[in-house]
Amino acid sequence: MSELVQLVARLGAQARAAARTLATTPAARIDAALRAMADELLAAETAILAANALDVAAARANGQTAALIDRLTLDPKRLAACAEGLRQVATLPHPVGEILREWTQPNGLKFAKVRVPLGVIGFIYESRPNVTCDAAGLCLKSGNAVILRGGSEALRSNTAIAAALSRGLAAAGLPAAAVQLVPVADRDTVRLLGESTGIIDLLIPRGGRGLIETVMKTARVPVIKHYDGICALYVDKAADLAMATAIALNGKVQRPGVCNALETLLVHQDVAATFLPKIAEALLRAGVQLRVDDAARAALGSLATTFSALVASATEADYRTEFLDLIIAVKVVADCAAAIEHIETHGSHHTETIVTADAGTAEHFLAGIDSAVVLWNASTRFNDGYQFGFGAEIGISTDKLHARGPMGLEELTSYKYIVRGTGQVRG
Amino acid sequence: MSELVQLVARLGAQARAAARTLATTPAARIDAALRAMADELLAAETAILAANALDVAAARANGQTAALIDRLTLDPKRLAACAEGLRQVATLPHPVGEILREWTQPNGLKFAKVRVPLGVIGFIYESRPNVTCDAAGLCLKSGNAVILRGGSEALRSNTAIAAALSRGLAAAGLPAAAVQLVPVADRDTVRLLGESTGIIDLLIPRGGRGLIETVMKTARVPVIKHYDGICALYVDKAADLAMATAIALNGKVQRPGVCNALETLLVHQDVAATFLPKIAEALLRAGVQLRVDDAARAALGSLATTFSALVASATEADYRTEFLDLIIAVKVVADCAAAIEHIETHGSHHTETIVTADAGTAEHFLAGIDSAVVLWNASTRFNDGYQFGFGAEIGISTDKLHARGPMGLEELTSYKYIVRGTGQVRG
Repeated sequence: MSELVQLVARLGAQARAAARTLATTPAARIDAALRAMADELLAAETAILAANALDVAAARANGQTAALIDRLTLDPKRLAACAEGLRQVATLPHPVGEILREWTQPNGLKFAKVRVPLGVIGFIYESRPNVTCDAAGLCLKSGNAVILRGGSEALRSNTAIAAALSRGLAAAGLPAAAVQLVPVADRDTVRLLGESTGIIDLLIPRGGRGLIETVMKTARVPVIKHYDGICALYVDKAADLAMATAIALNGKVQRPGVCNALETLLVHQDVAATFLPKIAEALLRAGVQLRVDDAARAALGSLATTFSALVASATEADYRTEFLDLIIAVKVVADCAAAIEHIETHGSHHTETIVTADAGTAEHFLAGIDSAVVLWNASTRFNDGYQFGFGAEIGISTDKLHARGPMGLEELTSYKYIVRGTGQVRG
Repeated sequence: MSELVQLVARLGAQARAAARTLATTPAARIDAALRAMADELLAAETAILAANALDVAAARANGQTAALIDRLTLDPKRLAACAEGLRQVATLPHPVGEILREWTQPNGLKFAKVRVPLGVIGFIYESRPNVTCDAAGLCLKSGNAVILRGGSEALRSNTAIAAALSRGLAAAGLPAAAVQLVPVADRDTVRLLGESTGIIDLLIPRGGRGLIETVMKTARVPVIKHYDGICALYVDKAADLAMATAIALNGKVQRPGVCNALETLLVHQDVAATFLPKIAEALLRAGVQLRVDDAARAALGSLATTFSALVASATEADYRTEFLDLIIAVKVVADCAAAIEHIETHGSHHTETIVTADAGTAEHFLAGIDSAVVLWNASTRFNDGYQFGFGAEIGISTDKLHARGPMGLEELTSYKYIVRGTGQVRG
C-alpha cells in the first residue's frame, strides 16, 4: 500500500514538473513531439502487438466478453490508425495562447484573458489501448501533462505504447513524463489519483458505473465525469412517422453499447395507437426488447402477442436505466410538457431528441430540456465530437461545470488574466 | 442529525423545482423580481436592522474581532446599498440565452451552443449580511436557484433578509425558493450541502481555511473554491524604484485582510542593496512586519536594527503563508527565473506581479507564472471583478476549472448544445 502511495506521488511530481515545462513550450515543438510519438509507435509495432497478444490471451482465458476483447485487440491497421491520429492532432490549431478577450480599463490597465493549459490531467479509462494514444495526443496538444490509468486488461499493451510515446517525447526534447502510465493494475491507484490534491488539476473518469462511482466517492481533486446516457426520444403528435421510426431505430440499434444510444421512447398519446405499432415493429424486427407501460401495451395491440418474447412491462427503474443493449423503455405521455417532465425527472441530462413538424413544440422541448445536447428531428447518436465537427474528443462530459457534452482540445484548457500597467495602484 | 438531513433535502428539492422554473423564465420577469426584492428589503428595514442588532450584540458578547463586527453590522445606509445593488444587477445584460457559437455541418444539422443556468448553486460564506443580497441577486440574474449558508454570527440578519427577498420573488410571481437560506447554524449543514449529489450543481465556499478544508474533505458535488491568496511582488533589477515601492505599499497596506493583498516580496539580487532599504523603510513606517531571509537582512543594513521590533528572520513556512495582516515575507532572488521558481513552488496561484522596465523580462514572468491573474507594473489589489470592469462578483476563484479569478454572472452559467435537423440519422 505504501508503495502504491509512493508510486502515485512520484508520477504526480514528475507530471507537475513536465507540466511546468509544457506551459512555455512553443507550439511547433509540441507538434514535432506528436509526430515523433507517431514514429516511435510504428517503430515499436512488434513489441506492442506482442504485448497486446498477451493481454488478449489473458482476457480470453478470464472469460471476458467478445465486446471487451474486440476493443482490447490491436493489429497493424489499428496501430497505424493510432499513429495517424497523433499526426492529425499535430496539424490542428493550438488552443493554448489564444487571446479570448482583450480590453483596457479607464485607468489604463490593459487586460487580456489568455487560454492556458490545465496543468496535469488524470485520465481513467476502459481497456482500449488506442485510447492511450488518443488521450496522450489531446492532452499534449493542449499543453497538459497526463497520467493515464487504463483498464487492467490492457496493462501490457498500454505499457508498451506508453514507452513508445515517452521515447517520442524524449526524441523531440520534451519531458518523457509529459505522458505517464500508471504501471500497475491495482484499483487503489484510482483512489490515490483522486486524492492527489494540488497535483492533479483535472481527473476524467470514463467507463463503467462502478468505476465512476468509486471516483465520485473518493476524489478530492476536480472531476469531470463521463457518465451514463439515459437518452430519450419524444415522438410528438405532429411527428413524421417515417422520420420518427428511422431516428428510433438509429438511436437504439446502430450501436447500442454507447452513451448516446437511445434508452427511452416517449410517444404522444394522440398518436400512440397509430405510431407506436409502426415504430415498435421496426424495433422488434431488429431484435429490440420493449419494456412498455400499460398505455403503450394497449397501443401495440396484437404486436404484443406476436412478439411476446420481446415485450415486457416496464418498471419505474427501467425509465432510469442505461441498458446499453437491445432494450428500450417505452411510455405514452400526455403531451410535450409531460415528456419534458418525464425526461427531467428520469433522465441523465445527456442527450434527448424530439421528432415533430411543429416548430413551437420543438422550441418548447429544446428550451425545457436541461441536457448537454438537445436535438430536434435528429438522432441522439450525433452527440459526438466528430459529428459536431470538433474532431478528436477525450470523451463526452455529463457534468455542467467547465465542459458539457463533447470534450476536445479547448475543454482541456483553462485561462489566466494578464494585466499590463504603468505603475497603477488601487485608490 | 436526521432532522438536519431532512432540512437540507427539503431545501434541495425546493431549489431544484425553482431552478426548473427559472430556466425558462423570461429575462424581464427576473429583472422585475430583482426590483421587487430591493423594494421588500427596504420595506423590511426595521425588522432587518433589529435582527442585525441582536447578531451584533451576540458577536460582541462572544468577543468577536472588531473586523468581524464591522462586516456584520448593517445600518440604513448599508441596507440601502444592498437594495441599490439588486437594482443595478437588474439593469445588466442577461447571460442566459446567449448564443456562444452557431454552425452548420455538411449533413445539414444546425448546431448552437447556448448559455444556460447552472441550476442550483450552494454558496457558503462569511458573516456578512450584505453578501446575502449580492449573492442572491447574481444567482437569480444568471437564472439559478441558490441555497445560501452564511456565517452563523449573521443568522438572524440573514433570516430577516432572506424572508424579504423571498417576498420579493413571490410578489414578482417567481418561486420563493429561488433564494433559500439554511436556517440553522449547525456546521453539519456545510457537509450535507457538499453531499447533495444530483441536487447542487455547484458549491462555492468562500471564507476561512477551516471552512474550505471542510468542504474539500467532504464535498461530492462540484466545488469552486475561493481560497487563499499568497500573492507575490517580484521587483526586478530593471524596476523603477518609486513604482516598486508604491506597488509594494499598496499591495500590503491598503487592505491587508483580503485575498489579493501582498504576502511575499521578492527582490533581484543586483538591486537588493539599493532598492530593499527604500521599499522596506516605506513598509516599516507603515507598521509592516518583515520576515526576511539572510540576504535581505544584509541588504537592509542599519534598518534592521532601527526597526528591530519589526524585522524577523523568515522561516520556510512564511513563504507559504497568507498573513492577511501587516506582515510580509521578503526574499532576495537571483533573477526572474528564480522568482518564477519560488512563486510556482510556494505561492497559491492567485495573483502575482512584476515591476520592471524590461519588456522581455516582463513577458517571461507573465508567461511563466501560472496564476489566475499575473500583472506587470500594477498592484495585486486589481484582482477584483469591479476593477476588471466585470461588475459584481460572487468571489475570486482559485480553481482552474470553469472559473478562474473574478467570478461574475457568466461564470455562474453553463451551456448546452441545441441541434436542429430534418430527420438526420448516423450512418
